[in-house]
Amino acid sequence: MAFAERISRLGTETAFAVSLAAAAWGAQGHRIYPFHLGDIDLATPATIREAMDRAVAEGKTGYCPGPGILPLREAIAEDVGMRRGLTYGPDNVTVHPGGKPVITKFTQALIEFGDEVLYPNPGYPIYESQIEFIGARPMPYRYVPTETGFRIDLDQVRSLITPKTKAIIYNDLQNPISAESTQAEKEAIAQIAIEHDLWVLSDEAYFEMRYSGTSSSIASIPGMQERTVILYTFSKKFAMTGWRLGAAIAPAELSAVFGKLNTNNESCTTHFVQWAGVEAIRGDQSGAIAIREALRGRRDAAYEMLSAMPGVTLSKPNATFYLFPDVTDAMAAKGIATLPEFAERALKETGVSFCTRLHFGRPQPGEDRMYARFAYSGLPEADIREGLGILAQWIEA
Amino acid sequence: MAFAERISRLGTETAFAVSLAAAAWGAQGHRIYPFHLGDIDLATPATIREAMDRAVAEGKTGYCPGPGILPLREAIAEDVGMRRGLTYGPDNVTVHPGGKPVITKFTQALIEFGDEVLYPNPGYPIYESQIEFIGARPMPYRYVPTETGFRIDLDQVRSLITPKTKAIIYNDLQNPISAESTQAEKEAIAQIAIEHDLWVLSDEAYFEMRYSGTSSSIASIPGMQERTVILYTFSKKFAMTGWRLGAAIAPAELSAVFGKLNTNNESCTTHFVQWAGVEAIRGDQSGAIAIREALRGRRDAAYEMLSAMPGVTLSKPNATFYLFPDVTDAMAAKGIATLPEFAERALKETGVSFCTRLHFGRPQPGEDRMYARFAYSGLPEADIREGLGILAQWIEA
Repeated sequence: MAFAERISRLGTETAFAVSLAAAAWGAQGHRIYPFHLGDIDLATPATIREAMDRAVAEGKTGYCPGPGILPLREAIAEDVGMRRGLTYGPDNVTVHPGGKPVITKFTQALIEFGDEVLYPNPGYPIYESQIEFIGARPMPYRYVPTETGFRIDLDQVRSLITPKTKAIIYNDLQNPISAESTQAEKEAIAQIAIEHDLWVLSDEAYFEMRYSGTSSSIASIPGMQERTVILYTFSKKFAMTGWRLGAAIAPAELSAVFGKLNTNNESCTTHFVQWAGVEAIRGDQSGAIAIREALRGRRDAAYEMLSAMPGVTLSKPNATFYLFPDVTDAMAAKGIATLPEFAERALKETGVSFCTRLHFGRPQPGEDRMYARFAYSGLPEADIREGLGILAQWIEA
Repeated sequence: MAFAERISRLGTETAFAVSLAAAAWGAQGHRIYPFHLGDIDLATPATIREAMDRAVAEGKTGYCPGPGILPLREAIAEDVGMRRGLTYGPDNVTVHPGGKPVITKFTQALIEFGDEVLYPNPGYPIYESQIEFIGARPMPYRYVPTETGFRIDLDQVRSLITPKTKAIIYNDLQNPISAESTQAEKEAIAQIAIEHDLWVLSDEAYFEMRYSGTSSSIASIPGMQERTVILYTFSKKFAMTGWRLGAAIAPAELSAVFGKLNTNNESCTTHFVQWAGVEAIRGDQSGAIAIREALRGRRDAAYEMLSAMPGVTLSKPNATFYLFPDVTDAMAAKGIATLPEFAERALKETGVSFCTRLHFGRPQPGEDRMYARFAYSGLPEADIREGLGILAQWIEA
């Protein structure tokens, strides 16, 4: 069967293979500790579920406008703007079935065949896939370890800029490594974008999924709002991953294009789910706070357990769902040479399932340390302690 | 602001402009009779709403597989296959946020830049838009009036085939004209597809939205199942337009590509909505039957009223939501030369809002009759009689 050539350029989330392997091992009767999922096992707050019920009862089951319902676009514009010290209106907001479709629509609206797009690697694998799918050249930039986490290799970023560079994808509070930019780093990225007239896709999926400190957006730096598309999602803060509700916040002229793309593809995002989104933003926040505090407990537990393991080093991020330990020495001590072998043996000998650096883009030249990604959003604190306790024994054995 | 070149090739549903004009006129205090909407004002059956509630309560609020949940793919495979005398399995089914995204994914997976794609005109305007957006050449084929409705101009279809023809979009039970193929016509289209090795996108959105007779699929003709993608939607039969739930039924190898495209774009279709879809197919059908019977009453009323108007001729379709009267003589009698003027004057002088042939693709050479499209799914039978009564007086005046 012959598919269009572009299909040969389509990547995927290889992390799904980890889910399948864990499920297959679990189906054989083994206890699984699922640290591979960037999903949340907590319930969506009742206030949000009830708002959806009301919308269905009120007949919000027909089509709605492709860009999204006005009350939700207003709520997002106010909330996103307020938290970033920026002014946005509903004309800057389009609603999408999740944050992920914003990546698709950003590339469709702005990137020509043959353009070059910078993106973080390790990073969310769909960046690379969508850049290649649209026919652009993917230009990965790297992170380097610091005392407290990771920083972007700004010299490398600058070296990657060419006359064909059209855009840079920037994911502060990063998946998988949980890196957070200093203000200086954020300004350096902004400076590069302004100097070379680049579009910026700022993936701010974890902007409000943080345990200390305050998030800031690259869009808030002077000269940036007009060249930045903010990827917003309801998935994390409100435990709504499977609801599929997100938004793009962008210059109005670009938002109009996004809305037209919506009309062409999905018509609109599920109507009554949008009304639930209005409640999520405007209503009682105690449910969202409870979700964050549950995740804080999980982060603290997972960090405590992992950092006590011999040959495992990591920092304690202030945000996201992820810990990204350097496991090079632990692997060496166990005589394991490759990350796939490490992950497979850990699964089969301890039941602990996790992704590795290899699930987040092709490794860059010169990488000599090995990392695993532990997501702590998908299992309770007691299971985190139990599973990582077993893993610790295995590593020490 | 410079967008990617492909954006210049993106069309839209110009019918939305009709909605805006009607809303603006209504906002000035005028009574509106909305015949322009292909939406349904009836409630989704309670059994389906309750199934969604149960799914949310059971925690079906996280991610699910990109191709869709297995129970829904199984239900669709069985139901679609049974109604068409074909055997499908879950590997032939991918779930999408509506039927419309199947058009996008069909073009992304199969159509190269420079290919030619045949499609019905007048027809659903997103066909033309998506063909052009992907960089293919749109090749419209026409319908000609018959004693009982419309037939496809098969000679024209044959004349449009070239070595670059890759696919044909076929929409039996057609929007906007409600044309239904005879078996001979369907077989002729199939013969052309087989002879020239074409893919067929069979838009079967209205397959089960019919009042008499039995639908059949072009996929059921020998040699067709392996080259046909069926567009399936929950929107019409179950009054679920705003839920955004549909599916593609396709050869397994192509379904795998569709699933990968889902993973890249929207991750998955709203998880708990998929469980509602399982109930829609497998559960009590009395709600769906009540919807169809309500629409039958509306069709009969709208047909009765329109066919009694001087200078208006139309057939009575067995399926869809649409009547497509020839209004040429009525326009002439009123001294109105163009369809936009006819629609605007009808709106402002009667409150009756409708689309015209011009909202369904660029007119083809030689078209000398003028048509309007009346959708009867969006207003109750009493309003249909009242609105069309006022329209009749206006036409007769």
